[in-house]
Amino acid sequence: MQLMIVILVFAAGLALAYAAFNFFAVKKLPEGNERMQEIASAIRVGANAFLDYEYRVLYLVIVLVAVVLAVVTMWQAAVALLIGALMSGCAGLVGMKIATYANVRVSNRARETQNIGATVKVAFRGGSVMGLCVGGFALLGLFVTYVVFGLWMGQLRVTDASYVNFLGLSFIPFPMTLSGYALGCSIVAMFNRVGGGIYTKAADMGADLVGKTEAHIPEDDPRNPATIADNVGDNVGDVAGLGSDLLESYVGAISSGIILTYHMFLQSGALGTGMTEKILEKCILFPLLFVSIGMIACCVGIASLLAKKRLSEDPRRELNGATYVAAGLTILLGLLSSWLLFRDEDAAVLKASLGFTAGSLSPWIAAAIGVVSGVVIGMLAELYTSADYQPTRRLAQAAEEGAALTITQGLALGMRSCMVTCIVLAAGIVTSHAVSGMYGVSMAAMGMLSFVTATVSVDTYGPISDNAGGIAEMSGLEPRVRQITDTLDAVGNTTAAIGKGFAIGSGALAALSLMISYLYSFNEVGTDLILNMMTPMVLAGAIVGGALPFLFSGMLIDAVAKAARKMVSEVRRQFRERPGILDGTEKPDYKTCVSISYQGALAEMKLPSLLSIVVPVGTGFLFGPSFVGGLIIGSTLVAIMLAIFCGNAGGAWDNGKKYIETGGIPGAGKGSEAHSAAVVGDTVGDPLKDTVGPCLDIFIKIMSTVSLVASPVFAQYNLVSFLSRLFS
Amino acid sequence: MQLMIVILVFAAGLALAYAAFNFFAVKKLPEGNERMQEIASAIRVGANAFLDYEYRVLYLVIVLVAVVLAVVTMWQAAVALLIGALMSGCAGLVGMKIATYANVRVSNRARETQNIGATVKVAFRGGSVMGLCVGGFALLGLFVTYVVFGLWMGQLRVTDASYVNFLGLSFIPFPMTLSGYALGCSIVAMFNRVGGGIYTKAADMGADLVGKTEAHIPEDDPRNPATIADNVGDNVGDVAGLGSDLLESYVGAISSGIILTYHMFLQSGALGTGMTEKILEKCILFPLLFVSIGMIACCVGIASLLAKKRLSEDPRRELNGATYVAAGLTILLGLLSSWLLFRDEDAAVLKASLGFTAGSLSPWIAAAIGVVSGVVIGMLAELYTSADYQPTRRLAQAAEEGAALTITQGLALGMRSCMVTCIVLAAGIVTSHAVSGMYGVSMAAMGMLSFVTATVSVDTYGPISDNAGGIAEMSGLEPRVRQITDTLDAVGNTTAAIGKGFAIGSGALAALSLMISYLYSFNEVGTDLILNMMTPMVLAGAIVGGALPFLFSGMLIDAVAKAARKMVSEVRRQFRERPGILDGTEKPDYKTCVSISYQGALAEMKLPSLLSIVVPVGTGFLFGPSFVGGLIIGSTLVAIMLAIFCGNAGGAWDNGKKYIETGGIPGAGKGSEAHSAAVVGDTVGDPLKDTVGPCLDIFIKIMSTVSLVASPVFAQYNLVSFLSRLFS
Repeated sequence: MQLMIVILVFAAGLALAYAAFNFFAVKKLPEGNERMQEIASAIRVGANAFLDYEYRVLYLVIVLVAVVLAVVTMWQAAVALLIGALMSGCAGLVGMKIATYANVRVSNRARETQNIGATVKVAFRGGSVMGLCVGGFALLGLFVTYVVFGLWMGQLRVTDASYVNFLGLSFIPFPMTLSGYALGCSIVAMFNRVGGGIYTKAADMGADLVGKTEAHIPEDDPRNPATIADNVGDNVGDVAGLGSDLLESYVGAISSGIILTYHMFLQSGALGTGMTEKILEKCILFPLLFVSIGMIACCVGIASLLAKKRLSEDPRRELNGATYVAAGLTILLGLLSSWLLFRDEDAAVLKASLGFTAGSLSPWIAAAIGVVSGVVIGMLAELYTSADYQPTRRLAQAAEEGAALTITQGLALGMRSCMVTCIVLAAGIVTSHAVSGMYGVSMAAMGMLSFVTATVSVDTYGPISDNAGGIAEMSGLEPRVRQITDTLDAVGNTTAAIGKGFAIGSGALAALSLMISYLYSFNEVGTDLILNMMTPMVLAGAIVGGALPFLFSGMLIDAVAKAARKMVSEVRRQFRERPGILDGTEKPDYKTCVSISYQGALAEMKLPSLLSIVVPVGTGFLFGPSFVGGLIIGSTLVAIMLAIFCGNAGGAWDNGKKYIETGGIPGAGKGSEAHSAAVVGDTVGDPLKDTVGPCLDIFIKIMSTVSLVASPVFAQYNLVSFLSRLFS
Repeated sequence: MQLMIVILVFAAGLALAYAAFNFFAVKKLPEGNERMQEIASAIRVGANAFLDYEYRVLYLVIVLVAVVLAVVTMWQAAVALLIGALMSGCAGLVGMKIATYANVRVSNRARETQNIGATVKVAFRGGSVMGLCVGGFALLGLFVTYVVFGLWMGQLRVTDASYVNFLGLSFIPFPMTLSGYALGCSIVAMFNRVGGGIYTKAADMGADLVGKTEAHIPEDDPRNPATIADNVGDNVGDVAGLGSDLLESYVGAISSGIILTYHMFLQSGALGTGMTEKILEKCILFPLLFVSIGMIACCVGIASLLAKKRLSEDPRRELNGATYVAAGLTILLGLLSSWLLFRDEDAAVLKASLGFTAGSLSPWIAAAIGVVSGVVIGMLAELYTSADYQPTRRLAQAAEEGAALTITQGLALGMRSCMVTCIVLAAGIVTSHAVSGMYGVSMAAMGMLSFVTATVSVDTYGPISDNAGGIAEMSGLEPRVRQITDTLDAVGNTTAAIGKGFAIGSGALAALSLMISYLYSFNEVGTDLILNMMTPMVLAGAIVGGALPFLFSGMLIDAVAKAARKMVSEVRRQFRERPGILDGTEKPDYKTCVSISYQGALAEMKLPSLLSIVVPVGTGFLFGPSFVGGLIIGSTLVAIMLAIFCGNAGGAWDNGKKYIETGGIPGAGKGSEAHSAAVVGDTVGDPLKDTVGPCLDIFIKIMSTVSLVASPVFAQYNLVSFLSRLFS
């Protein structure tokens, strides 16, 4: 076991050290001319200001939740929550900082070398800092929680619900602490995603609605007062938001598996299936070991790209190369971890207690199923959203028939795309369950995310390149520079769609295994785990739960629209009051736009973010745990569909528009009627794909985690059971 | 019991006789001038032609399903299916015929009297024929099934699964026969709704896309070649489609309660809770009696309006008056039926076996809860879609900011609107279950639809008035006539939204009680009914099931777009090749447009319609009954959300546009930029609210009924159980 801890520490340390190395390696590159430095600094200042403000709101919520947690459960869970929040906050902050350093250096590198390969390297090195921070900080936090609370304070040794706190509530200590850790990560992710998502889309829509549609100036034109805000948005939404989101998914997948293990152990004790404490310990270690190996594999993958002297002109091949090296190594070496841990355990006991049907390799097979389903889901997202394939091309053609048919067709595309992805998910659940029981389902989620460092690095490369293009445009660099950054950016769009597929796929699986732990937490030990949809309370919960993701999405869209509207009137005001801006004789006031965007985002993000915490707890106290069980399953089901729908419809509209811009449809280019229709589609799709879709997976996971943490309380104290005691 | 049968026959007879009376009363009214007659006849010929063609496809499907049903279950079920199809087909046909007679007579009455009240009376008399046919034919079919198969052939006496057919499958005969009847109604409804929905929206979008947007001519302008097709669409979609839809809901709600009763009886036998055959018989009679009373109450309500010498100038008040009389009388007299049937039964036995907690009045309370929730859901639909309230007004204001924000805002409105409706539904389920057990939930669905005749009459009045306006416009009648029909039509829009609320609310409840019967059909008697979401097969089914309504909706939208596209190019061709059309010197070719619309609808309707039959049966044979259980629950949950979303978003876009047209927003009227944006919203919303939304509730009910009917087969023969037998 010492060896495992050494591997864990080594993996986390390696990741963070490599992140630091890349951070400084990027930072020491030249920034380019004065104009470029000026713009980059404006973006950096704007991004920092937003995160500063956002984190202030966040601190309050985190401290509040921590205090409540300490009171109703135990202080260790509260401390773990703070650790989780700190880790997630750090990853977001560091990743965003490097993105705002890297962007200008990417445009400068493109300017100096005029070479795609050399430019890709800088962008990817910047992105890798975010990727390594996500993996590194998540593992560091897990390590601290595991060693300090688990080993040192002995929580790992308490394997039944013998801990009774001063309120008389009993629960198993380590799963509760780990839930606290996961919850901390989730809350930060929620605020970063929602706040960043509103910010970025409000700025983007605001800039486009006036700039492109009314003033007819191109994207990122320095005359548009909202351009700086738009570029700030890429950093706070697509970098910081994405980073915390995937960190949360990563931690959620790992901890849901561990939490589940305790309940399996308790079940086994009651049913006499012979699961020993040693097996329990191994089940806890397996995901930790697997992701540590994945982490090391990702470092190798990243290094394999960065170490190359010359990169090819095809960034997609290079980036895919790094990811495939990471994924392949993870699967290969993961086999070892499964074999090392479980080979000397009795296969019959493993089968009876955990449902392992393939002996010691069972959890590895489940994790590998996760990797494969993740890749397939990503490929499906690409199929539906890339202009290389029929669906998006047909959508682009519909633009020739006007805005109404563009929207209609896009809605239909998004709706149709749910089925195949769901079939893959369902197949993943059935097969991973067949090979490793419910533990297998959470291991599939864990597997899907085990090489998260590589995918986040690739994902972050996208917005950095996008920003680099913006800086090139705004500082008036020669067209060739913009061409290079556009090539980089186009690849980023596809990788982003794939990344979203991973996030929702793993999110759904992790939510399901959290859900199982939730049910175990108040289920009588030794009885079958049942969430019976045919009881009226569960059914009512599922119906209300099904409406929740729709309500949440509607609120988010409204929030974006509201914030975008403020931006629109500010841009219009500037154009009206200072006509010199459009002639280029006067400089627009970027700062007001930046502050409008962040004020709008901060004002609008609170309500939807709190929904995921307040609703399960509130209804839990009113209607009891069965209702909440229904609530979670209803929300999860509907959220999966909505997230796929939003991601694919939005992605297809965006790429359909780009397809028209690059001349994919003869006779229809920029400025044509078809292009205007496509811009309407893109504008509608923006909040769907970049705000709603990515927030939905965090939403369902926060709901499950919060319910899990609060269940000991409301399972005992709730209105329905109070009333039924009263009347009986 | 003889008394009950007399009431049932009397109610059905009364309804059909009154329908016949109103039919001929309308038909003998004068048709107006030659031009009006000519146009009306073109619409009538088009509508008849479509239904003729559609019914040919339908016959094939019905006969095919009947043959399969006869082979795998029993011939009685197949005959009942044919009866159901015949009843539903007749209701749709007669209702549509009268609508195509009434439309021109309404415009003529407006022309002759220049009086709103007198015109309303004709339109409502026409609508009442559809309403009375829906109730009358449904009851007639139920009566035949009950008397012929139940009493005469003795199926009612067989109360356990002692019937074994030649394939060795056993089931209870009467529920199977009744399921066959319900399935017949559902399949016709599906084809009428899907076919009619595609037809009407293809014509409508086709007419609008070229007429309003390109040629800038008003709606229903005789120069637009697609106008006749558009008006035909109102009759086949909004009249025939709506009628079969609500007939199906009505029959589904009644029969799901009766089918459930048998399973409750079997359970009771196994658990020894003392439910007698007499109670079983009363549980079967209660919904039949209740809807018969509702039928008579509706006749009184309708007569109360038609008997008035003079109607007021406010059609809404008059129509609401008729509905309230019907609903009030139904609730009041329904009390009697509950009391008469159950008063001499032992309350303790009723409680133990059926979950009646309020003695003999329990089922009545459940039905009344249904009525109240139905009314509240209808009011919520009005709140979200009527321009009298904030949501739609705010949406109309967003139109000033362009098409993109109009769409975005409408999506958000639709998404947000799900929650309150779902809370009402959930509360309805919990309370009706608390008072009458699972039987209560189906009685709530039955109650919601017990005065369906009144609501369908009011609903059909809408498209008749709409058509009357079209005829007035096309035959160049004076503006005052159009004003009168517009007043009538505006009220129709609101009543339509309310009607949709009823349809989806009752659809969800009926699907749930069918689902329970489904589960009972292969559950071991005497054990608790469980649909455990925590088994991988159920979960996988629920995920795939959740994606189904999205796939179905996407297919429908694509179908409408495809058919609309053909219409657009035909209209463009006519304008291009015969420039005289736009000058008014040449007559457009209406016929080609009509035939394009119906060919498009017929070609596109097959695939989505068959989905609801093929998927549950196919997956049942592959993955067994648990998977299908998950499939139904997942589909039902997601379909509820999508139907509410589509109905409310679409309704709000439509009425937001109308609000702008009537000068609701200062400075923005017809022809303004805001109006163009609102037209985009309306065009996007059209297929959502008139095709997708209404089809979703039929979709989930067909799925549940088909699964229920096929379950004896695939519960015994399926791939999963075959494989597990093979490997064990």
